[in-house]
Amino acid sequence: MKRPKHAKSVNQIPGTMTYVGRKEAAKTQLDVIDYNQEHYERYRSTTVEDAFNFVDEDRITWFNVDGLSDVEEIKKLGEYYELHPLVMEDIVNTGQRPKIEVYRDYLFIVAKMLYHKDGNIENEHISMIVGRNYLLTFQESNGDVFNPVRERLETATGRIRGRSADYLMFALLDSIIDNYFLVIDDMSDRIEKLEESLFVDKPNDNITIEIQELKRTILRIRRSVFPLREVVHRLEKLNNGLIHEKTINYIQDLSDHIIQISENIDIYREMIWGLMDLYMTTISNRMNEVMKVLTIMASIFIPLTFFAGIYGMNFEYMPELQWKYSYFVLLGIMVIIFFAMLYYFKRKKWL
Amino acid sequence: MKRPKHAKSVNQIPGTMTYVGRKEAAKTQLDVIDYNQEHYERYRSTTVEDAFNFVDEDRITWFNVDGLSDVEEIKKLGEYYELHPLVMEDIVNTGQRPKIEVYRDYLFIVAKMLYHKDGNIENEHISMIVGRNYLLTFQESNGDVFNPVRERLETATGRIRGRSADYLMFALLDSIIDNYFLVIDDMSDRIEKLEESLFVDKPNDNITIEIQELKRTILRIRRSVFPLREVVHRLEKLNNGLIHEKTINYIQDLSDHIIQISENIDIYREMIWGLMDLYMTTISNRMNEVMKVLTIMASIFIPLTFFAGIYGMNFEYMPELQWKYSYFVLLGIMVIIFFAMLYYFKRKKWL
Amino acid sequence: MKRPKHAKSVNQIPGTMTYVGRKEAAKTQLDVIDYNQEHYERYRSTTVEDAFNFVDEDRITWFNVDGLSDVEEIKKLGEYYELHPLVMEDIVNTGQRPKIEVYRDYLFIVAKMLYHKDGNIENEHISMIVGRNYLLTFQESNGDVFNPVRERLETATGRIRGRSADYLMFALLDSIIDNYFLVIDDMSDRIEKLEESLFVDKPNDNITIEIQELKRTILRIRRSVFPLREVVHRLEKLNNGLIHEKTINYIQDLSDHIIQISENIDIYREMIWGLMDLYMTTISNRMNEVMKVLTIMASIFIPLTFFAGIYGMNFEYMPELQWKYSYFVLLGIMVIIFFAMLYYFKRKKWL
Amino acid sequence: MKRPKHAKSVNQIPGTMTYVGRKEAAKTQLDVIDYNQEHYERYRSTTVEDAFNFVDEDRITWFNVDGLSDVEEIKKLGEYYELHPLVMEDIVNTGQRPKIEVYRDYLFIVAKMLYHKDGNIENEHISMIVGRNYLLTFQESNGDVFNPVRERLETATGRIRGRSADYLMFALLDSIIDNYFLVIDDMSDRIEKLEESLFVDKPNDNITIEIQELKRTILRIRRSVFPLREVVHRLEKLNNGLIHEKTINYIQDLSDHIIQISENIDIYREMIWGLMDLYMTTISNRMNEVMKVLTIMASIFIPLTFFAGIYGMNFEYMPELQWKYSYFVLLGIMVIIFFAMLYYFKRKKWL
Amino acid sequence: MKRPKHAKSVNQIPGTMTYVGRKEAAKTQLDVIDYNQEHYERYRSTTVEDAFNFVDEDRITWFNVDGLSDVEEIKKLGEYYELHPLVMEDIVNTGQRPKIEVYRDYLFIVAKMLYHKDGNIENEHISMIVGRNYLLTFQESNGDVFNPVRERLETATGRIRGRSADYLMFALLDSIIDNYFLVIDDMSDRIEKLEESLFVDKPNDNITIEIQELKRTILRIRRSVFPLREVVHRLEKLNNGLIHEKTINYIQDLSDHIIQISENIDIYREMIWGLMDLYMTTISNRMNEVMKVLTIMASIFIPLTFFAGIYGMNFEYMPELQWKYSYFVLLGIMVIIFFAMLYYFKRKKWL
Repeated sequence: MKRPKHAKSVNQIPGTMTYVGRKEAAKTQLDVIDYNQEHYERYRSTTVEDAFNFVDEDRITWFNVDGLSDVEEIKKLGEYYELHPLVMEDIVNTGQRPKIEVYRDYLFIVAKMLYHKDGNIENEHISMIVGRNYLLTFQESNGDVFNPVRERLETATGRIRGRSADYLMFALLDSIIDNYFLVIDDMSDRIEKLEESLFVDKPNDNITIEIQELKRTILRIRRSVFPLREVVHRLEKLNNGLIHEKTINYIQDLSDHIIQISENIDIYREMIWGLMDLYMTTISNRMNEVMKVLTIMASIFIPLTFFAGIYGMNFEYMPELQWKYSYFVLLGIMVIIFFAMLYYFKRKKWL
Repeated sequence: MKRPKHAKSVNQIPGTMTYVGRKEAAKTQLDVIDYNQEHYERYRSTTVEDAFNFVDEDRITWFNVDGLSDVEEIKKLGEYYELHPLVMEDIVNTGQRPKIEVYRDYLFIVAKMLYHKDGNIENEHISMIVGRNYLLTFQESNGDVFNPVRERLETATGRIRGRSADYLMFALLDSIIDNYFLVIDDMSDRIEKLEESLFVDKPNDNITIEIQELKRTILRIRRSVFPLREVVHRLEKLNNGLIHEKTINYIQDLSDHIIQISENIDIYREMIWGLMDLYMTTISNRMNEVMKVLTIMASIFIPLTFFAGIYGMNFEYMPELQWKYSYFVLLGIMVIIFFAMLYYFKRKKWL
Repeated sequence: MKRPKHAKSVNQIPGTMTYVGRKEAAKTQLDVIDYNQEHYERYRSTTVEDAFNFVDEDRITWFNVDGLSDVEEIKKLGEYYELHPLVMEDIVNTGQRPKIEVYRDYLFIVAKMLYHKDGNIENEHISMIVGRNYLLTFQESNGDVFNPVRERLETATGRIRGRSADYLMFALLDSIIDNYFLVIDDMSDRIEKLEESLFVDKPNDNITIEIQELKRTILRIRRSVFPLREVVHRLEKLNNGLIHEKTINYIQDLSDHIIQISENIDIYREMIWGLMDLYMTTISNRMNEVMKVLTIMASIFIPLTFFAGIYGMNFEYMPELQWKYSYFVLLGIMVIIFFAMLYYFKRKKWL
Repeated sequence: MKRPKHAKSVNQIPGTMTYVGRKEAAKTQLDVIDYNQEHYERYRSTTVEDAFNFVDEDRITWFNVDGLSDVEEIKKLGEYYELHPLVMEDIVNTGQRPKIEVYRDYLFIVAKMLYHKDGNIENEHISMIVGRNYLLTFQESNGDVFNPVRERLETATGRIRGRSADYLMFALLDSIIDNYFLVIDDMSDRIEKLEESLFVDKPNDNITIEIQELKRTILRIRRSVFPLREVVHRLEKLNNGLIHEKTINYIQDLSDHIIQISENIDIYREMIWGLMDLYMTTISNRMNEVMKVLTIMASIFIPLTFFAGIYGMNFEYMPELQWKYSYFVLLGIMVIIFFAMLYYFKRKKWL
Repeated sequence: MKRPKHAKSVNQIPGTMTYVGRKEAAKTQLDVIDYNQEHYERYRSTTVEDAFNFVDEDRITWFNVDGLSDVEEIKKLGEYYELHPLVMEDIVNTGQRPKIEVYRDYLFIVAKMLYHKDGNIENEHISMIVGRNYLLTFQESNGDVFNPVRERLETATGRIRGRSADYLMFALLDSIIDNYFLVIDDMSDRIEKLEESLFVDKPNDNITIEIQELKRTILRIRRSVFPLREVVHRLEKLNNGLIHEKTINYIQDLSDHIIQISENIDIYREMIWGLMDLYMTTISNRMNEVMKVLTIMASIFIPLTFFAGIYGMNFEYMPELQWKYSYFVLLGIMVIIFFAMLYYFKRKKWL
């Protein structure tokens, strides 16, 4: 998870649309789905004008824009639906945190999509405009997180085709939140793997780097997920006709899920912080082991070497040197000392 | 306590019933108790249709469902009592956190049962539907936590038979919370055992694993218990006719108990976090001991060996070598150094 | 401070009176004081019936029950004053945390008395029923914490005889809270003693055990004291005629004291947590000392021994061996090395 | 900063005045200032009766009492102004925490004065009674913190003479809070000095003692300052005619200052806690240094000594001993090993 | 980031203007911009009187004062616009924390500008007075943070010329907050650089000094930024005609940005605290390495030296000495021991 750049270009004029994301290459693409209970049509285009021909007043229209670099096309869409300039700015401002803004004719929701890519957790900016009979979604790159919803629309599975635009919004938020579960499950796996590796491998700096990396990741996930609680909470309380009463129950369900994810994030956070302590004790334990080996070796052989040193001295008058068995007696004493020391360390439980 | 899977299958259609628990094998079983002040009947069945014949409008009916894998039977029950699809989904969704939802005709309560099994703390999903004259309970597996309540119903002990369905709900929640006391008492025992073992056994990595395991367990218990505070608190404030005034006092009692458990959990949590510090100091103290032995042995014998080395040199002109008592004088000096060092370390309180 | 048992017997019927305290032996004793401005009478008894003869409607009656094991007598008292079954249960349930419950005709207050006994801090369950002209108090064992109040009643010191039952309640709560000051002063003494011992004695595991014990004690004191803040706070706001306006000022005084105690508890808590860090640095400092001694001894004598070893070799052609002053030259070099090393370590501030 | 005694004598009768401070010797002295826009008089006395002759209804009277041990005189003053007995008790109770109490005819404010004395931070109890045209202040000892205000009164500098008693109260609180800035600036200096000493001096236990002392001091300052936020906040919201609207702006200014001090205290608190970590790493770094010296010395000379030992053996058949240059070859090898080891440690960055 | 001096001169009279900042030398300069949709004029002066000639009632006037040391000139400006004395005091009091004060005819806003200078983060005091058709800004020194806004005014880019004074205030706050993004991005860079250096360089005290410095800096940034959240939040809720409804949307945008910055600050804060742990484990890991080298060297050569010592003894009767191949046999044994030890350490993963 790379560090995101700051939220907007410094000193730009407020209300100006400037795409600050990292996925500059992604070409902007429009995907329009027009549906009601009986009808379903899908259309792809790269220009907004093209797409407009397709909109039918009697149906619910879902505009999905993949890629935010083509600011001009997005602007045309925004002007068609009379969006506020600050809303337009936030759509392409990938640093914007999750929020909800209530306008007279539409809701503006910003969320973050989290998913895995090449072992990293990617963070993608998603904005939604929910109107009375249309829904606009803006994604940084064309991912497939909304595909299951498209399939349900196409095959008319479940209640989705018979409901209004707010239910479609719920379905999309639901699939975003579903992906959070995958991401935090993965966090949990990484924590467990790290824990195990602490007790198996030899200690190295890589582990601390990984722990620090994990800390950073969980803090960033937290930042993407926690504001969404507030968003969903405000959706629940909303009372301006854009959210139908029937949908409220489903939004409460979202609320449950997002709280559950938040709780898990906080638990994993504590576990990760605990990992560092764990690592410290592991290092200390190993140090203890090392020191014991040294102490045992030194404590046994240093005194023995001293005794050998004594009888290596060249004094002319050292009576023991002449005695016939003194060498063997000394060897015997050394063996006894050796085993006495071993016994001493055994009793101290160092062996 | 195994890591629970995430709360729902990713990308399933909201309102779909899918059992995500781990106890797939447990066969779904129905246990119906129909009672009032004068009457008591109990009936077991595996199909819902069977069970319905048994329901009597004038009495309070308690449907208890053991095992959630047979989604179809549960669906029939839900349809009979006109439950909301999302309620149906949450009944079989074992990842759902404790909550209460208030519908016009019934309350929906989700709680977690905690109990011991083979030295681990098991977490079981329980849902309750409280209607005006019926109570539905759904358990993951057939445990015996509700048996004392059944006995009181059968033997008409206490006030239970003369009260309405909400009192039965209270009695069941009460027995769930009673089990929490057992679980946290066990936590306390494990913490004390770990504390003792820190000062007795030789330090090993197992202790840190156990501490980390304990941390995880207390965090998960916390997650099962703390949301129930909110549930009980909302039950207290509820004002829609489903909870009788007489029962409110009893629910306040539940509230007391759940707060008490929460406080204990937080105390144990702090104690467990303290264990890691404790362990670190224990390791450090032992390291200190090891180092002292090494230092004492080395500090005494390294200088002595040096002196022996001096007179082991082969210089032709070393006057001391010819003197008659120089060997004994040197030995004497060595003994003096030896005891001087011992005295020094004694005074430093290293011995 | 022993770990208290869990709050109630598991799976007992709610509203059942079961004494779960540890002071089973203490015989239940009644002490009745009947007083007004002019009059004062005191009577002791072991049966409730006896005591009732004594009650006079025109006076304020204070029933004090010492010992909670004789559940039957307490029940009679409760029935006489028409107490709710759950109140009766909480009176003998020594695990109940401090709380206040407001009934139409009386207040029910649970508090914890803390006092020293044999170097430990004992925790005693106290309940009070405050009626219009009577006060019931229930203690686990007959302590003397209320004696100063009795004396003031007997000798008519201060305002107490001229006031109503709520003022008597205040006076009793005041003496309970006064005792908290003694207990936390003692905590402070123990912390200071531990701090000093950290810098004087040699490090041992006892200190960590004591610190852990202190942590546990402060957490348990906290649990006894903090809920009382809420109790006193609700007393202040109470508006049902049981608390006279004149008494409110005195209760605000209680509130001040309990907040002050809470703040002290939190300060001592931080100090205790800090002790562990202090201890760690003390151990590390000592380890440093040990290592320095070893390093100095080894660094000085190991090179010297090497030089001695060189000239202990038996090569036939070693020119230095034949030179006349080479032994003395070598000794001189060794002395120089010795002092050079000492100077080096001195400059490094290791000596 | 000595540990203050607990807040009141245990088991004294509530409403009794007992001086519990430590400055028993300080003689109680009265200082009366009577002023309005045109007039200024000052009078000192030791008896209250004397002072009363001096009071003029048309002017604002400021009674300042230095020294709280002469309880009787204070009582007379309290009775003259009809203060509540509990207010009287709190005036002499130096353990009382900062608070405000609103009575019908006067405000009662308790604050703490912090100042330096002999390198310690002294804590002094101050109470104020603010009436419509009088202000009573009670200090533990006669300090000079209020002198600047007296001078402004005497010389009629600023707006003070033309304002009412509440503005005088503001001016006094303002000088108390001004002194807090001095105290926390001093904390900041001590923290910086400690930080520097960590990296210069050799580690010793004194530093940990100082850090622990600093922790204790900041916690006590915090306890004196933080409740004053609430006091000032309540003054701002007060609406009973004692505080004039014109004064409110000035009190908001106090509020700003006290919040600013609180924030600084919390920052310094974190810095102090951080010092302990800093100290730990410093110790560990030094230990590392020590170990490196030992390891380098031992690793270089132990192998060399072994080689010397080899050729000190007395075997009859050791061909090397007879070769002419073997001694010099061995010396050469030893020199090579010596430099190889040095190079090795250099590359490991240990040198 | 130097420690700021306390907020005001101690014991000065409240409402007195005293400049307490550190940039005394900066000469006070006035920069007046007078504009409306059609018109734009700019004028520089050093006296207020001069500047006033320039003000045109029909246009919006922006007075920008650079340098706060010339208190007299600022006073004249304040008197012209009838500012409250306490506002005047806070304008030159650089220690004042960010706040908003609402007066009848104007808003008073204090903020902190953060920017880089010579590798340090500088903190500059900024005050704004927002009236109906004028805006006063006061800066400590003449920085260029407002230049982009001036350019937009001059070139009439965006909506700024057509809006009222409150929009100008928004534009200036926006450029202040934009600079925060730069500052916290820099923090992030410094944290990453420190993290990397932990694993590359040899451990030294500089790193701990830098970490401590970073802690201090982030705490001070936090103190400058966090109160601004409250300021912006109160601007949003303001309802007194000074803020036009059209501007509210833009202020919500500010709110978003400031919350985002706050969240980042807290994340970086946690990362910095984590650095210390990281550093500790790095030190410990290196110590481990050092100890292993010592232990391996000592454990291998100390026993070998002992064996050499044995056969260096001068006993007359040591049969091995006479055997022809005993020397070579011993050498062989030593080689075997050497490799056995190496193998042992290899298997322990110490090599």
